Amino acid sequence: MSTPSSTPPDVVRSAYAQLVVTDLDRARWFWGEMLGFHVQYEDESLLCLRGTDELTHHSLVLRRGETAALDHISYRVRTPEDVDRAEEYFRALGRPVRRVPKGAGTPGVGDAVRVVDPLGFPVEFFHDIERAERLIQRYDLRRGAEIARLDHFNICTPDIPAAYAHYEALGFGCSETIEGDEHELYAAWMYRKQTVHDVAFTGGAGPRLHHVGVATHESHQVLRTADLFGSLRKEHHIERGPGRHGVSNAFYLYLRDPDGHRVEIYTSDYYTGDPDHETYRWNVRDDRRRDFWGNAVIESWYKEASPVLDLDGRLQPVTEAVLDETAVQVGADGLGIVEPGGEAP
Amino acid sequence: MSTPSSTPPDVVRSAYAQLVVTDLDRARWFWGEMLGFHVQYEDESLLCLRGTDELTHHSLVLRRGETAALDHISYRVRTPEDVDRAEEYFRALGRPVRRVPKGAGTPGVGDAVRVVDPLGFPVEFFHDIERAERLIQRYDLRRGAEIARLDHFNICTPDIPAAYAHYEALGFGCSETIEGDEHELYAAWMYRKQTVHDVAFTGGAGPRLHHVGVATHESHQVLRTADLFGSLRKEHHIERGPGRHGVSNAFYLYLRDPDGHRVEIYTSDYYTGDPDHETYRWNVRDDRRRDFWGNAVIESWYKEASPVLDLDGRLQPVTEAVLDETAVQVGADGLGIVEPGGEAP
Amino acid sequence: MSTPSSTPPDVVRSAYAQLVVTDLDRARWFWGEMLGFHVQYEDESLLCLRGTDELTHHSLVLRRGETAALDHISYRVRTPEDVDRAEEYFRALGRPVRRVPKGAGTPGVGDAVRVVDPLGFPVEFFHDIERAERLIQRYDLRRGAEIARLDHFNICTPDIPAAYAHYEALGFGCSETIEGDEHELYAAWMYRKQTVHDVAFTGGAGPRLHHVGVATHESHQVLRTADLFGSLRKEHHIERGPGRHGVSNAFYLYLRDPDGHRVEIYTSDYYTGDPDHETYRWNVRDDRRRDFWGNAVIESWYKEASPVLDLDGRLQPVTEAVLDETAVQVGADGLGIVEPGGEAP
Amino acid sequence: MSTPSSTPPDVVRSAYAQLVVTDLDRARWFWGEMLGFHVQYEDESLLCLRGTDELTHHSLVLRRGETAALDHISYRVRTPEDVDRAEEYFRALGRPVRRVPKGAGTPGVGDAVRVVDPLGFPVEFFHDIERAERLIQRYDLRRGAEIARLDHFNICTPDIPAAYAHYEALGFGCSETIEGDEHELYAAWMYRKQTVHDVAFTGGAGPRLHHVGVATHESHQVLRTADLFGSLRKEHHIERGPGRHGVSNAFYLYLRDPDGHRVEIYTSDYYTGDPDHETYRWNVRDDRRRDFWGNAVIESWYKEASPVLDLDGRLQPVTEAVLDETAVQVGADGLGIVEPGGEAP
Repeated sequence: MSTPSSTPPDVVRSAYAQLVVTDLDRARWFWGEMLGFHVQYEDESLLCLRGTDELTHHSLVLRRGETAALDHISYRVRTPEDVDRAEEYFRALGRPVRRVPKGAGTPGVGDAVRVVDPLGFPVEFFHDIERAERLIQRYDLRRGAEIARLDHFNICTPDIPAAYAHYEALGFGCSETIEGDEHELYAAWMYRKQTVHDVAFTGGAGPRLHHVGVATHESHQVLRTADLFGSLRKEHHIERGPGRHGVSNAFYLYLRDPDGHRVEIYTSDYYTGDPDHETYRWNVRDDRRRDFWGNAVIESWYKEASPVLDLDGRLQPVTEAVLDETAVQVGADGLGIVEPGGEAP
Repeated sequence: MSTPSSTPPDVVRSAYAQLVVTDLDRARWFWGEMLGFHVQYEDESLLCLRGTDELTHHSLVLRRGETAALDHISYRVRTPEDVDRAEEYFRALGRPVRRVPKGAGTPGVGDAVRVVDPLGFPVEFFHDIERAERLIQRYDLRRGAEIARLDHFNICTPDIPAAYAHYEALGFGCSETIEGDEHELYAAWMYRKQTVHDVAFTGGAGPRLHHVGVATHESHQVLRTADLFGSLRKEHHIERGPGRHGVSNAFYLYLRDPDGHRVEIYTSDYYTGDPDHETYRWNVRDDRRRDFWGNAVIESWYKEASPVLDLDGRLQPVTEAVLDETAVQVGADGLGIVEPGGEAP
Repeated sequence: MSTPSSTPPDVVRSAYAQLVVTDLDRARWFWGEMLGFHVQYEDESLLCLRGTDELTHHSLVLRRGETAALDHISYRVRTPEDVDRAEEYFRALGRPVRRVPKGAGTPGVGDAVRVVDPLGFPVEFFHDIERAERLIQRYDLRRGAEIARLDHFNICTPDIPAAYAHYEALGFGCSETIEGDEHELYAAWMYRKQTVHDVAFTGGAGPRLHHVGVATHESHQVLRTADLFGSLRKEHHIERGPGRHGVSNAFYLYLRDPDGHRVEIYTSDYYTGDPDHETYRWNVRDDRRRDFWGNAVIESWYKEASPVLDLDGRLQPVTEAVLDETAVQVGADGLGIVEPGGEAP
Repeated sequence: MSTPSSTPPDVVRSAYAQLVVTDLDRARWFWGEMLGFHVQYEDESLLCLRGTDELTHHSLVLRRGETAALDHISYRVRTPEDVDRAEEYFRALGRPVRRVPKGAGTPGVGDAVRVVDPLGFPVEFFHDIERAERLIQRYDLRRGAEIARLDHFNICTPDIPAAYAHYEALGFGCSETIEGDEHELYAAWMYRKQTVHDVAFTGGAGPRLHHVGVATHESHQVLRTADLFGSLRKEHHIERGPGRHGVSNAFYLYLRDPDGHRVEIYTSDYYTGDPDHETYRWNVRDDRRRDFWGNAVIESWYKEASPVLDLDGRLQPVTEAVLDETAVQVGADGLGIVEPGGEAP
């Protein structure tokens, strides 16, 4: 990957994900009723949602479409000029770039630029976004998982070092990695805001969206979410967890929405805002890296993910992970060290 | 099983389990440091432990021996006369019975009777037990899992209907069952105190002790327990969970002690003290019965259990479950309905 | 108080309180929306409510009337014959007694007897009550405080020793007391079910209802309740707490309903079911007895309470506490040891 | 206050407070055993402590001295050059400034500058600090309150608008204020890191330190802290709370250390890192601003605070708040709107 000569935009944080869903009513049930996202805007083809702590228009957009996919992920940048910088930066990289003026793109969002980044992902950068009424203390409006805010994106890509290099060039720090004995990179967690991550990379066929991570304040809210799905005989939406991550130390639960999009309920990671914050490196054979309690990761979590669109809304082709690497990865970071029966050796 | 003509003892509650462990130091680490049991008495071959809410001498006794096993489970009865009734009752049943005077048995326990019950389990009945200093509000002494009290015994037996009939004759109520379509009994939870159970039956080779259940006050104490094992790189002690049970609605975590004895950390079931409390029946094909969130039960949880001793301290032979029934059980209540990959269909 | 020669009824537990409220809609908002009680029955003048763990028709009845008051408290007894025993017992005591056949009294309740007890309280005893659909695992129906069940009644009476003697004669055990240096009794907590109490006595003018205690499973549910009242700018319903009690060790929050009836949200006390359970005695000068953290009890909590009706629905006159005792009580168990400014000395 | 022409240092976050305590053993008990700070360094006159999530040498320093006081608060700056900028900035302001080379000041801290700021507070700025072993997942080392990290300083000053202007000039954002009807400023919360504050101002005689705010992950850890003090009959260390703040929405508990220094245990505020984050303004007559549940603030919390030292270690004189303003403040933001008996009108 060539290094661009232009200045990268100053990314503030992961801002929102726009997902294509096939049935808006079912999606509203899952994300609104069950996860507790507040509906900020809706029309016949779109829902804009935000968490209870969020003060901007949305952090999740659900767009009705024929095929479930990631439409784009979106980062907020510090100034309007950073939108221009994003445009120049990705043009210099030779990537597809499209300017989306206010009103032409997602409701609530001002002037933006959308690109297909070097990893093949559709990514938006914007600065202006409508502010929204403060709901932080509207406990009376809380429902379900009581999601407070978007936390991060997790993306599948066959080439983790390339993903690392791209986001490092964009100014992201790295909080944690999973590495082999020779420091070959199996996964990385990278941040702009002062948490463990705004984006993380899971090795595998890509570009695909592994999951959207959303935050609650305390662990009992995560447990309640699982209880709610059990109550309604909808426990098949629960894919993995609840558990404690080794990486990030967060308490987690993975769910699948009615279209199969994966969402992680995530709480209690740590501050990463110091200028010399060091990367914490997990060995791929430490069975606590994915679950600090040593519980096995189920296969679907490693294998399934959402396809992504290009700037014209077409499904992008997926590149399998390099053969050797896949074998190592599934064998090492994947399911390999877990014995049949689900117990660690 | 013939019905005895004599009056059964009035059982108050499950009182304590006496386990044979092969290394007292390692057992003290597990049960004392990690689970937070208070050491009430110890000598070179014995540890008597109790939870922070318990006001009697112990609820768990660890005895050093060559082979890890259940020495006996013990029930407290309402009056000294009920100890005599227990003796008569099991003699009438033709079972091995031995009187254990105060001082001859477990420290702190008064006059007792020990039997091998019709299910093959070594069971003690006593009334008198030394009282112990109140620690209920000694938050400063709490450690690890902060176990408040013993909650129940769970025993493996090949003949669930026989176990049900025996405990029903002893005056136990039944809070919940797992049943087939024809109401064939796969598991049952039975109580004397006003909780979901003092004893439960898991189908399988028996007599064996499936686990001892111990209670905390809140779910965050259960999560903390798992975090502690992860911290020390001892996560292999975690066998299953944390999770929410369908049966009992309790939040749970299963651990294995250094000898392989299984313990369940258990919290938040419900009141069962009304005279007409009805049994709640789960169908064996409801994948929420063992985990309300539909997470798969791992194989070792169904297959492994502690052997039990007879009144002379010899290991008792184990009877496999009746062939047809085993097949159904493993196929229906066991792992059968869970697909490869760990997801419910 | 003379001792009756007849046998007292076998009380199972505190079963329900029937309150007169002046506005059913406001009462439904408070108890239904905010506290999360499930409406089991309603007509134009009555609401029957129950907690999420309760399997009988109601644990709280709100009746519309002109003057807010306690209509009656009600205990469930073990057998239909115990209803007859209650009748005989209170007739032998020379108290007003009225038989209330099924259908003539509170909906859902079978044949009952209502009395004015020696302390002046309207008390009902019944055995039969309609069963209700199990909601224990209907997390989807939970709201607000997510009340699981009624826990206890707390009553104001000027003569605590008389209250103690009356309930002791009815077979209640005593878990905790507040006492002076000469063991003079300032307050007592008495139980039939295996918790710290079914009824407690607060010294003061009486007969008046101090509060109804209702249970949640965990402390975060108590905090959420307070947050909800703050959200709606209804924080004046919060009277005292949240806090930890010295007595009972429970975590608590006191609220006042729209008519001024006090309710305690209460969680995490301890098991009292052993036959030799001993009374734990607090000295009246231990500033942790009412709040384990030493926070001052506010004056209204000691002084205000709900009036009670007689069997004809008329307000009963209130007797002030004996003068000497009142002085000591307000000075000792009341506000006396707390310095101006709210800090313990 | 004149505006300096020089560039202010780029402050990363509130980094540590150095307190003078009169007895190191008692201080170690309070901060180490009870609050759970990890002792990173100690000698006969000094303790350097840090929370479980902190990766730098300390966030709290306790120095033995004759008179309990604040020695200095300290901010980390982004680069070594920012230390020079701090020196120039405060020199330009005509304030006392002293360079403290590595090794001459607090252990673990590199080259620093200490000033007396325009508000009269001793303030240090540094960039270099020793890194420390990662304890984030050492659950086995957690004790007491399980403090994760320093969150903020709260300082008493008679002139809130001046404090606001000074910190605004230093580049701090303002998350929340308490204001009168004419927007006169009673209190303000200002931040550099992406939380509600690094520093807040309480109106009153100053310069004095109102409290140091330290963070836990979840509210149950705050409750546990209070329980621990009750257990040891040390409940007089609890001054106010637990409660929910209106401002910040954090769950809180205020304690006083053995020297009277106040510390706030604080959890669950919200993200403030967006570039256009708006100030949320509370009216001084909203009784939820200090406690969202309307509980009264006790008088000592408004009146008592720690004196501060100058650069030579001498106690600095205190200026009373301007007379009119004090009257308004005590009457409006203080105790004025709370009725006798502790209830809101």
